[in-house]
Amino acid sequence: MAEEQDAPQVSYEELASIEDQFEQIDTEIMRKQYELSKSAYAKRKEAVAKIPHFWPLVLEAAPPEIDQFIQTNDSRIIAEHLLEIDVTRPELDDGKAGNPRSLKISFKFEPNDDFEDEVLEKTFWYRRASDGWTGLVSEPVKINWKKDKDLTEGLTDGAVKLFEARKKAGDMMSKTVPEYAALKEKVEHWSAMNTSFFTWFGWISGRRWVSAEESEKAMAEHAEKKANGKNGATEEDDDEEYNEDEEDDKEDDSDVEVHHAGEEFAISLADELWPNAIKYFTDAQEMDEISEGDFEEDFDEDDEEDGEPIDIAELLKEDKKRGKSDGGPPSKKAKK
Amino acid sequence: MAEEQDAPQVSYEELASIEDQFEQIDTEIMRKQYELSKSAYAKRKEAVAKIPHFWPLVLEAAPPEIDQFIQTNDSRIIAEHLLEIDVTRPELDDGKAGNPRSLKISFKFEPNDDFEDEVLEKTFWYRRASDGWTGLVSEPVKINWKKDKDLTEGLTDGAVKLFEARKKAGDMMSKTVPEYAALKEKVEHWSAMNTSFFTWFGWISGRRWVSAEESEKAMAEHAEKKANGKNGATEEDDDEEYNEDEEDDKEDDSDVEVHHAGEEFAISLADELWPNAIKYFTDAQEMDEISEGDFEEDFDEDDEEDGEPIDIAELLKEDKKRGKSDGGPPSKKAKK
Repeated sequence: MAEEQDAPQVSYEELASIEDQFEQIDTEIMRKQYELSKSAYAKRKEAVAKIPHFWPLVLEAAPPEIDQFIQTNDSRIIAEHLLEIDVTRPELDDGKAGNPRSLKISFKFEPNDDFEDEVLEKTFWYRRASDGWTGLVSEPVKINWKKDKDLTEGLTDGAVKLFEARKKAGDMMSKTVPEYAALKEKVEHWSAMNTSFFTWFGWISGRRWVSAEESEKAMAEHAEKKANGKNGATEEDDDEEYNEDEEDDKEDDSDVEVHHAGEEFAISLADELWPNAIKYFTDAQEMDEISEGDFEEDFDEDDEEDGEPIDIAELLKEDKKRGKSDGGPPSKKAKK
Repeated sequence: MAEEQDAPQVSYEELASIEDQFEQIDTEIMRKQYELSKSAYAKRKEAVAKIPHFWPLVLEAAPPEIDQFIQTNDSRIIAEHLLEIDVTRPELDDGKAGNPRSLKISFKFEPNDDFEDEVLEKTFWYRRASDGWTGLVSEPVKINWKKDKDLTEGLTDGAVKLFEARKKAGDMMSKTVPEYAALKEKVEHWSAMNTSFFTWFGWISGRRWVSAEESEKAMAEHAEKKANGKNGATEEDDDEEYNEDEEDDKEDDSDVEVHHAGEEFAISLADELWPNAIKYFTDAQEMDEISEGDFEEDFDEDDEEDGEPIDIAELLKEDKKRGKSDGGPPSKKAKK
C-alpha cells in the first residue's frame, strides 16, 4: 500500500502488539491477585456470614452500573432471601493457570415462595471466536420458578430451550429449530420491558455462543500469528482480526439474546461489587442513618467508632419492613 | 457498651482489619504491576513518540471523569503544544519499595506563547495524617506564564506563595500570613468560574497539607495499633480513625484550595488514561472519521486493517486547524 513520504511509520500492528503485551501483564497480575486474595476472601466470608442481610445491603448501596440491572421486584426477593454471593475464577481454581477473565458468580438463597433453587450459579468463559472476537460467553441457567412467579416472563426458559435444541441440532446458530422463532418473538415483545435481574441468568453472549473447541483453536492460531508476525505486518493478517463495525453480520445472534449487557453486568459484579463489598455495606448503613433521620438518641461520641458491634438485632427486627429504598437498620449513630 | 442479646457479634474493627488485609494485597499487586509493566511502557513511549499529536488525541477521547477538568482554552494549548505525558511511581523507582499510590505526572510541551516551562510536573504523595486521614497531597507547582496569559487567574501563583509563606512561618495551616487572606479571596472569586486544567498544578490536598514527617509517624502508630489490637477492639482505638463526617473542623483548609478534585483527577489520569492511552488514541481516530464525514474516497476493504500505517502526514497538515471537538486526521477509512 502507499506510504506517506517524510512521515515516520508506526503501524497499527505495532500498537496492537504493545497492547497485547499489556494484556499479558494484566493476565499475570490477575492470577497473582487471585492467589494472594484467597485467604482474605475466606476471612471475609466467615465474618460476613455472621451479619444477616450483609449481601442485600451491599446490593442496596451498589453503584449505578450494577443497580440499573436490578428492578423493584428483584429487590424484594434479594432483600428477603439472598444469603450469599460468591465469585470465583474457574480457570484458576484447583491449581490451573488458565484465563483469569473467566468467572463463576453464585447466589445462595434461603427457601422462598418464588423459585425452587437454593443456588443460582452462572459461569462466564473468556473465549476467542474464529474471526478474532474475544469476550465472555455463558450457558443459559434454568431457574425453577414456582407457579406464576417467573419474573423473566419465560425469557430464561426460552433461552435454555433454544440452547438445548441447537446443541441437539449440532448448530449453535440454527435459526430453523422451532425454539428460535419462539424465543425471537418473546425477546421482541419483552426485552424492552423486561429487565429483571434474573433474566441475566439466561444471557449467552454479546455476539453469539463460542464453544471451548472453537476458542482453543482460535487462541492457538492467534498465538502462532503473533509469533510469526513480529517482524512486520502482512496484509493477510487483516482477515484475522474482528472488526467491531461489522455488527449486522452472520455472527450476530442478538435477536434471541435475552439480556442486553450480560458481560458488563458480570464484570461489574466481579470487579467492582465483590472486592468492595465491605465498603458498600458500610455505605448502606450510612445511607440508612440519613434516610431514617434517627437523630433523637443521645450518645457518647467516643462510643460510635470502630469498636461498636454491628446492630444485628435491629437489622433482624427491621427485616420484614424493608424495601429497596429504605433498607437496613436504624442506627444508634447520630451525626451533627 | 450494651450488646444485643442472641445476635452474633461482628465488630467494625474486624471488618476494618479485613479491609486492611485487602489494602496490603493491593499494595503488593500495584508494586508487581509497576515492575512488570515497565518495559511495555518504554516500548509504547518509543512507538508513540513517532506519532505526532498522540497525546492530544488521547486527551480528546478521554472519558468524562478526565474531560470535565479540561476547558476550551486548555484544549487549545494541549492540542497545539503537548508533546508527551509520563506517569511514574516515585516511591517505587530506583529499587524502592514504598507506597505505590504515590504518583508523579509530567506533561512535556513544545515552546509556546503561553508559558515558559517545557515540562510541568506534579508529584502526589500518599500520606496518613495524625488523625487517621489518608490520601494524596502535593506541593503546588509554579507555572511561568507569559504576560497576560495566565489561564488560572493567579490561583496557582497564589497557592505557591501561600505554601512558601507558611513554610517560612513554620505553620502549614497558618491563617495569619497575608498570603492566606489574599488567596482565600481569589479562591472565593474565581474557583466557581475558573476550572482551568492548569489550576490543578496548584492543588495541595482534599483536606490539608500533610508533611512526610507527620505521615511517617502516623503510619508507624497505625501499624503498631493494628499489631496490638488484633485480639479485640478497645474503645481507645476510637480516637485514632479519621471521621469523614467531621468535615468543617480545624483540619480543613479548603478555603484556600484552588482545585476541588485534584486527587480524583490525578488518579483518573494515572489509572485510566495512562494505561489505556492506545485505546483512547484509536477511539479518537474513529471519532474523527465519523465527525468529518470523509466517506468520499474509494478504498479496498482489505487495505484498511492492521497493516495500515497511521496517517501521520495528514495529521500534520490538519494540525493548525484543529480544535477540541474535531481534532485528528481525516481518514482514508470509510465504513458502510
